[in-house]
Amino acid sequence: METTTHPAAPDSAPYAATDRTVPTRARERAAYDRALVHAILDESYVCHLAFVRDGAPVVLPTLYGRVGERLYVHGSTGSRPLRMAGAAQPDDGADPGLPVCLTVTHVDGLVLARSAFHHSINYRSVVVHGIARPVTDPEEKRTALDALVEHVVPGRAADSRPANAKELAATAVLSLDLAEVSAKVRTGGPNDDPEDMDLPHWAGVVPLRKGYDPVVPSADLAPGIEVPDYLIEP
Amino acid sequence: METTTHPAAPDSAPYAATDRTVPTRARERAAYDRALVHAILDESYVCHLAFVRDGAPVVLPTLYGRVGERLYVHGSTGSRPLRMAGAAQPDDGADPGLPVCLTVTHVDGLVLARSAFHHSINYRSVVVHGIARPVTDPEEKRTALDALVEHVVPGRAADSRPANAKELAATAVLSLDLAEVSAKVRTGGPNDDPEDMDLPHWAGVVPLRKGYDPVVPSADLAPGIEVPDYLIEP
Repeated sequence: METTTHPAAPDSAPYAATDRTVPTRARERAAYDRALVHAILDESYVCHLAFVRDGAPVVLPTLYGRVGERLYVHGSTGSRPLRMAGAAQPDDGADPGLPVCLTVTHVDGLVLARSAFHHSINYRSVVVHGIARPVTDPEEKRTALDALVEHVVPGRAADSRPANAKELAATAVLSLDLAEVSAKVRTGGPNDDPEDMDLPHWAGVVPLRKGYDPVVPSADLAPGIEVPDYLIEP
Repeated sequence: METTTHPAAPDSAPYAATDRTVPTRARERAAYDRALVHAILDESYVCHLAFVRDGAPVVLPTLYGRVGERLYVHGSTGSRPLRMAGAAQPDDGADPGLPVCLTVTHVDGLVLARSAFHHSINYRSVVVHGIARPVTDPEEKRTALDALVEHVVPGRAADSRPANAKELAATAVLSLDLAEVSAKVRTGGPNDDPEDMDLPHWAGVVPLRKGYDPVVPSADLAPGIEVPDYLIEP
């Protein structure tokens, strides 16, 4: 899914920290490394996309895809954030766009401390701030939709019928550049206070299961179509 | 975690739909049933909490708990949304509070259709709109913190050292009433177009694994402390 020509070629330098991407708490957990950010983004199935409507925040889960340093979300041309992004016209005459915050979170484990206070979770998250802009170029739109399918199951875009003209017209796509970005990661066991170490409570980490359960083929699947290799976990 | 006296006793009527909780798309997937909403909320580990800062949306993952028809989130007294909720003072002289949107999403399965366009996911989500208010009553604060621990692992609040006065003072808690709430659920297989049914692509659902992997006890766990029953899955 990486491209070197579109969008602007990524470099290997970390993302620059900004006022919005430096957390007020647990700063030691914040990271700006591109490879880490990409890995966290590529492993999740949905993001949570926030925008402001009538002055109030709204956050909705949605599928997304990544191409280099650009994310894509899509939806019906009638959906609210998609319409808002296309309709919003800042006073300064700049491009249309919708200020958004896009967050991806993996919960990796439950951290059980001897004290209630030190209970936590092990997680990896990415927060992206920026302006979501409608994708109007047909070629970029197709690339984005392929990336969305590839994001769900790598290898799948080539093994499905591509979108036709009618489907492309019915689908709105927004792009969001990876510019103001941070990751946050917690790993390891509980951080109990020294005076709690002898309390009679179990302490440790409960990892959450990942991966696929056995697939469920469609009842009307044509005979002879086997489960594709990209669905078989190593 | 259910109480009948605090907060206001829930009734069994569904949540009333509002302009914000009726989706513009896929309305047939929206639901307002309290039992369904509670079940979706109780099964997740983190929510995504959105608020507006300097006119722009922010969405962050955070732990939460539920007590009846009220949700709680917590954080350091120095964290940004917690400070904002305590500081915000509307012009009308009403209580302090922070307009938020709190969303919980389960991704249950990947839906692979024969066409790229009909790819989807099976999910269950809840979106809550409202005003997050600081919890100042010490008794409610303690109830909220218990609910947060119980939310991570039911049965755990009673098997850990309760928060002491210093920890309570360092922790800020916000409450959010379940009033403007909707759920959205997708289940089942792909919805391919009739003319695509004979294409040579596998179609079906890939369920995602749920539950715990084997627990990892702390290295410094005192001898003789066994894995508690509430961590052993049925």
